[in-house]
Amino acid sequence: MAKKVVLAYSGGLDTSVAIQWLIDQGYEVVACCLDVGEGKDLDFVKKKALEVGAIESYMIDAKDEFAEEYALISLQAHTWYEQKYPLVSALSRPLISKKLVEVAEQTGAVAVAHGCTGKGNDQVRFEVSIKALNPDLEVLAPVREWAWSREEEIEYAKSKNIPLPISLDSPFSIDQNLWGRANECGILEDPWATPPEEAYELTVSLENAPDTADIIEIEFEQGVPVAIDGVSYKLADLILKLNEVAGKHGVGRIDHVENRLVGIKSREVYEIPGAHTLLLAHKELEDITLVKEIAHYKPVIEKKLTELIYEGLWFSPLRTALEAFLKETQKFVNGTVRVKLFKGHAIVEGRKSPNSLYDEKLATYTKDDEFDHASAVGFIELWGLPTKVNSMVNKGEKKVQA
Amino acid sequence: MAKKVVLAYSGGLDTSVAIQWLIDQGYEVVACCLDVGEGKDLDFVKKKALEVGAIESYMIDAKDEFAEEYALISLQAHTWYEQKYPLVSALSRPLISKKLVEVAEQTGAVAVAHGCTGKGNDQVRFEVSIKALNPDLEVLAPVREWAWSREEEIEYAKSKNIPLPISLDSPFSIDQNLWGRANECGILEDPWATPPEEAYELTVSLENAPDTADIIEIEFEQGVPVAIDGVSYKLADLILKLNEVAGKHGVGRIDHVENRLVGIKSREVYEIPGAHTLLLAHKELEDITLVKEIAHYKPVIEKKLTELIYEGLWFSPLRTALEAFLKETQKFVNGTVRVKLFKGHAIVEGRKSPNSLYDEKLATYTKDDEFDHASAVGFIELWGLPTKVNSMVNKGEKKVQA
Amino acid sequence: MAKKVVLAYSGGLDTSVAIQWLIDQGYEVVACCLDVGEGKDLDFVKKKALEVGAIESYMIDAKDEFAEEYALISLQAHTWYEQKYPLVSALSRPLISKKLVEVAEQTGAVAVAHGCTGKGNDQVRFEVSIKALNPDLEVLAPVREWAWSREEEIEYAKSKNIPLPISLDSPFSIDQNLWGRANECGILEDPWATPPEEAYELTVSLENAPDTADIIEIEFEQGVPVAIDGVSYKLADLILKLNEVAGKHGVGRIDHVENRLVGIKSREVYEIPGAHTLLLAHKELEDITLVKEIAHYKPVIEKKLTELIYEGLWFSPLRTALEAFLKETQKFVNGTVRVKLFKGHAIVEGRKSPNSLYDEKLATYTKDDEFDHASAVGFIELWGLPTKVNSMVNKGEKKVQA
Amino acid sequence: MAKKVVLAYSGGLDTSVAIQWLIDQGYEVVACCLDVGEGKDLDFVKKKALEVGAIESYMIDAKDEFAEEYALISLQAHTWYEQKYPLVSALSRPLISKKLVEVAEQTGAVAVAHGCTGKGNDQVRFEVSIKALNPDLEVLAPVREWAWSREEEIEYAKSKNIPLPISLDSPFSIDQNLWGRANECGILEDPWATPPEEAYELTVSLENAPDTADIIEIEFEQGVPVAIDGVSYKLADLILKLNEVAGKHGVGRIDHVENRLVGIKSREVYEIPGAHTLLLAHKELEDITLVKEIAHYKPVIEKKLTELIYEGLWFSPLRTALEAFLKETQKFVNGTVRVKLFKGHAIVEGRKSPNSLYDEKLATYTKDDEFDHASAVGFIELWGLPTKVNSMVNKGEKKVQA
Repeated sequence: MAKKVVLAYSGGLDTSVAIQWLIDQGYEVVACCLDVGEGKDLDFVKKKALEVGAIESYMIDAKDEFAEEYALISLQAHTWYEQKYPLVSALSRPLISKKLVEVAEQTGAVAVAHGCTGKGNDQVRFEVSIKALNPDLEVLAPVREWAWSREEEIEYAKSKNIPLPISLDSPFSIDQNLWGRANECGILEDPWATPPEEAYELTVSLENAPDTADIIEIEFEQGVPVAIDGVSYKLADLILKLNEVAGKHGVGRIDHVENRLVGIKSREVYEIPGAHTLLLAHKELEDITLVKEIAHYKPVIEKKLTELIYEGLWFSPLRTALEAFLKETQKFVNGTVRVKLFKGHAIVEGRKSPNSLYDEKLATYTKDDEFDHASAVGFIELWGLPTKVNSMVNKGEKKVQA
Repeated sequence: MAKKVVLAYSGGLDTSVAIQWLIDQGYEVVACCLDVGEGKDLDFVKKKALEVGAIESYMIDAKDEFAEEYALISLQAHTWYEQKYPLVSALSRPLISKKLVEVAEQTGAVAVAHGCTGKGNDQVRFEVSIKALNPDLEVLAPVREWAWSREEEIEYAKSKNIPLPISLDSPFSIDQNLWGRANECGILEDPWATPPEEAYELTVSLENAPDTADIIEIEFEQGVPVAIDGVSYKLADLILKLNEVAGKHGVGRIDHVENRLVGIKSREVYEIPGAHTLLLAHKELEDITLVKEIAHYKPVIEKKLTELIYEGLWFSPLRTALEAFLKETQKFVNGTVRVKLFKGHAIVEGRKSPNSLYDEKLATYTKDDEFDHASAVGFIELWGLPTKVNSMVNKGEKKVQA
Repeated sequence: MAKKVVLAYSGGLDTSVAIQWLIDQGYEVVACCLDVGEGKDLDFVKKKALEVGAIESYMIDAKDEFAEEYALISLQAHTWYEQKYPLVSALSRPLISKKLVEVAEQTGAVAVAHGCTGKGNDQVRFEVSIKALNPDLEVLAPVREWAWSREEEIEYAKSKNIPLPISLDSPFSIDQNLWGRANECGILEDPWATPPEEAYELTVSLENAPDTADIIEIEFEQGVPVAIDGVSYKLADLILKLNEVAGKHGVGRIDHVENRLVGIKSREVYEIPGAHTLLLAHKELEDITLVKEIAHYKPVIEKKLTELIYEGLWFSPLRTALEAFLKETQKFVNGTVRVKLFKGHAIVEGRKSPNSLYDEKLATYTKDDEFDHASAVGFIELWGLPTKVNSMVNKGEKKVQA
Repeated sequence: MAKKVVLAYSGGLDTSVAIQWLIDQGYEVVACCLDVGEGKDLDFVKKKALEVGAIESYMIDAKDEFAEEYALISLQAHTWYEQKYPLVSALSRPLISKKLVEVAEQTGAVAVAHGCTGKGNDQVRFEVSIKALNPDLEVLAPVREWAWSREEEIEYAKSKNIPLPISLDSPFSIDQNLWGRANECGILEDPWATPPEEAYELTVSLENAPDTADIIEIEFEQGVPVAIDGVSYKLADLILKLNEVAGKHGVGRIDHVENRLVGIKSREVYEIPGAHTLLLAHKELEDITLVKEIAHYKPVIEKKLTELIYEGLWFSPLRTALEAFLKETQKFVNGTVRVKLFKGHAIVEGRKSPNSLYDEKLATYTKDDEFDHASAVGFIELWGLPTKVNSMVNKGEKKVQA
């Protein structure tokens, strides 16, 4: 009896070819495709997998799980990788890996396969995640292994009667989920070139953005966005809704030259209309609800969590520990943020919270002021004491040295 | 003979009243006013100081020193306080303190005075800086000490024939230098309220921004912006030029609820058209010229430097040590960044550098690829090994615990 | 009816005088004394409080709570302040504050008082903790407020018939709990002077330590020490037991010049025989049970937690969040550590764990080696790629610049 | 004409066999051996290289360069890897690589070879360093490549007339330089086993340590130890001298289970008598000469620098930047430390400095006290304000949630 392999199947050329290639290696192929919010026609993908040779084909709607356990972490932890983009593919890879492993365990497969090449981050994320979840499963990377040129791959596909996609000449390589859309390749490889308009899909250009703003109110409970303009949504739907509303105003385009885990720099463009809006709104709500010590330390945790996820270590126990910190900080992040969507901007114009630590009576310069100005004198004296003593002791020498 | 005090004089009501108040305390007052790029009429200020009672009046053009030794640090270190604004007043206070101390030492003054109240950050910055530079000087804070209401202050001014400003009813409290403009008070004290248009001065509103973009090229040498569109500027002029060009497009408005050093949250709006443009451009140039390890570690240093400056410790030896790190990272930050100024955005559309570490032959997905895909296999194996061993050892127990 | 104040009462001269001084200010004084493991005669202290004027006197045995909720955090977080001592007084202050507030709320007191002077850390810890737990309570600091010289204080005590302690001439100022003993003052104020033998009490000198080692096995469950040599102890007793056993071998003397929160450096000596032994043993157990990523990141959290506690912010929500991280890391810290106590050392000679991630088959250099040596080639290629590209691009320029 | 390879030659079996193996591959072998303080007989090694087939043999005394540019960084940066040992091999690898590359460039070699296996850290350090210094050189790793068992290697050696060492049965694998001695393998592979006495060489056991202490004074200038008991030494000699003096008292044994870069845990023992003594003394001098802000931040830099060096990235520009920070902090680390060497301890008993920031007049509790106790009141008020406001706002909700 042939060994089974579960393949992460997208419906595209690479993974369709991979089905046949794996069959060539003596495997029975179980195709598995997830919907994490990219708007796939799962039915079509399911059938195509079977048509090109898979013996079983699983389609999984993982939008809610992705929103609530992966995108939400990105939102609450402000996971701006290199201060530029809040992770897109890095968030979905561990979830896809988890589902692949589950399907493998259910179907008695001995291996799991993904369609990544050898120079991206995703191969690392898939393989480390799969090994963490089930170290006994073998991991195969057909595309990395066959190492064909584009022409050789098409040749092979034709020889196996694998249907070629219409957009064979698309210069772009896309990955999308409800948190955003990533696009690399082609013209983008020259970092001096302006990204062409066709590189974008979720957002309109600034030139085409409407001349009238939309102003929305987003409500949060314990750091989770739960409603827009008083209408409740489950998280996946809320993000998709914002992708639409903010995308219409051209919000959330990013053009980034980033450092990959595998040691090279690459240039990609991202579109994150919903994520951008939520990240800004959430931060502003934190600005009034987090105590100063947390506000100043949380970014340290955020940076580590961002890098850990980017680097494929979602299933490291360190992620769990960082998340424990994160969740503890969200308990009082309740309230409403008013956002103006206009000309590519998501401008927070107002924020309010039952847990607001902004105290108008302390902050005011009016006669309602309750702040004790005299306290400042003693504070400054002790705050500056080390610097002052240092000057008294070393000032002369500094002059000599300078 | 009366003791001399050097007063940081702005020409406004508070410091004009302070001159008389200090005379009341038995001092001879030496007024000292700096131009750090706020566009003051120094001549007018100088004369006014003498008119309201100062025995000497010093006006100092410190724009270049401010740009090259203070604003430049903010630019190169990306000093976004609380991820929102790149410091404005915090940068000028140590320089003003330095000049006040110099004037005090030249004129034989025994004290230095500033016009801050007891609840802001600036009192800390002035007093710690002055004590660091000359621990023997006494520091006076007339406004904090007299603790008058607005009405009482005006009463006193009238009684001393101190001219009242026309804008006596302005609800705003402004501080400005070439790096930006800070505005607090009045309507802004309610964080749910949208800041009124009149709170802004350096930038047009998005609604009034022109429909045609300006595209400019900024050239950097060792992390210092040196030219725009091929025209060289000294740094102070370059920043002022960008304030104008970017301000015209509505770039660089910020609305922020921040944590002050003195323990309260306050809400302020900032305008930083030039700084915003330069900070984004500089970061993008770093993205192609900094090696990954520096790109990922420099933000740690940046955060500390930002907080240190915000908290008034510019003259701590820690700042010098952090700056030594910073300067070392800028050696190869050479190149040109193309920025599109449009509808409140400064969008970097292209970046190039003789020191670019972006290597198209490593990054490409075309046939020119020189990256060794096979290396990834071994890399992933070792990269994920700790996570895998952890799973092998603890997986069973995890299930039990979950 | 007089207002009530709850006073943190130690039985010593300062707080005995404070009872009378508070009565002078018109208060009724409720004395409150905690045993946190310093071996006090609570009965004696209780009576003395009443004798010198308190209207009520509460004695609270808080050893278990202190061990399990305060000392344990120090142990698991390796809270070595300035890499030298694992906090002593800083740990008990928040617990004492909590009990004082509880007594104040039970007895209807309007204020809480402590016996600290104005230059130590403890005043900060008490006052911030009390205000965090009940912002409505007033906090009094009699010793800081009266600002008497030693002679004036004794004069006052005599005038009020407050019994003077026998050890009136002791040059030391001691604070002790089960986690350790802190000692400052007198001869120690010269950092060049060797601490005199009489500064120590819990430990013998190296010269007097026995010539025969004790070897003990300490067992941990989820990061909590639960048994010594197979005998189970509750935590407070286990620490006290180790204080005795390790103290006999001279383990845990520390001589430290530290930076206080209030801006000065001070020199203190500490004795922590039990804590020293446990901290070393716990770290070694972590060394085999923590995955690399946690092992390398936990010290970042530890440093922040240490400083936060030292600086009196135990009741900041940041402490809770850091503790959530900490507790998550302890789940697999199970096992046994063998420690040799000898001549001032607690040497870990062996460690074992059911959750050990040390894998002899991966680590060995014998023929049982299961590590894939070939993986290293690809790993090194990608690991060093940024450094290599940097050299290729910038090497020439570096030479020019050097 | 045959291609030349420069081999890092130690005189041991592995690298002797490597000479012949490289000749088999068609290379001419240039042997290169460095003395970095391990006390090698360079003459003997030089001749042996030629005897077993090298065409040229270079011996380089690099002790001073190693001490001043590598060990000194470890000392000043307190590079305690995983809080346990201050790096030993990791410090010498970049220097050896540098010399190998220099010899390769002088002799026209096309490759450099080292004798590391595939599971240690040193292969990474060599290969990344060599590629950083000259990306055009090929790097060979004969031992990793031939992948022979011990028996196969000896068989080959006999067949090529390579002399076998006398200590063929030694269970240990040693690396040594003047900063310390590292030992792994054999019995040590069981982390529960006590290291045998024969695992150590530079230090006596506690049991055999003398009953009389040695007390020495170490003098530092700008963070560099320059004299012992008033006698000046150059750094290499000073370290070797301390290895002897402190080793005699059993100072500096370490037994550590560490996380290697290549993803596994391994157990090693280290001996660092001189380094241990210097590291403790230097830290104590910093404790009195560093301003608080630097004292609390320098450990952050130290941790990164330690990991960077451990992980083979010495020649990353990040190391240079971190070192710029480090050197800036050492300017005032001047003074003398008195150390008692006794029974495995290096106890700092006194420290003094012309740049001491310890101010007895501020620290004292005697009547000479110059500290302004009243300042504390205002300081505490503002320091605790965020925590207090948080309690006022969220206390009720906390109770509900608990």
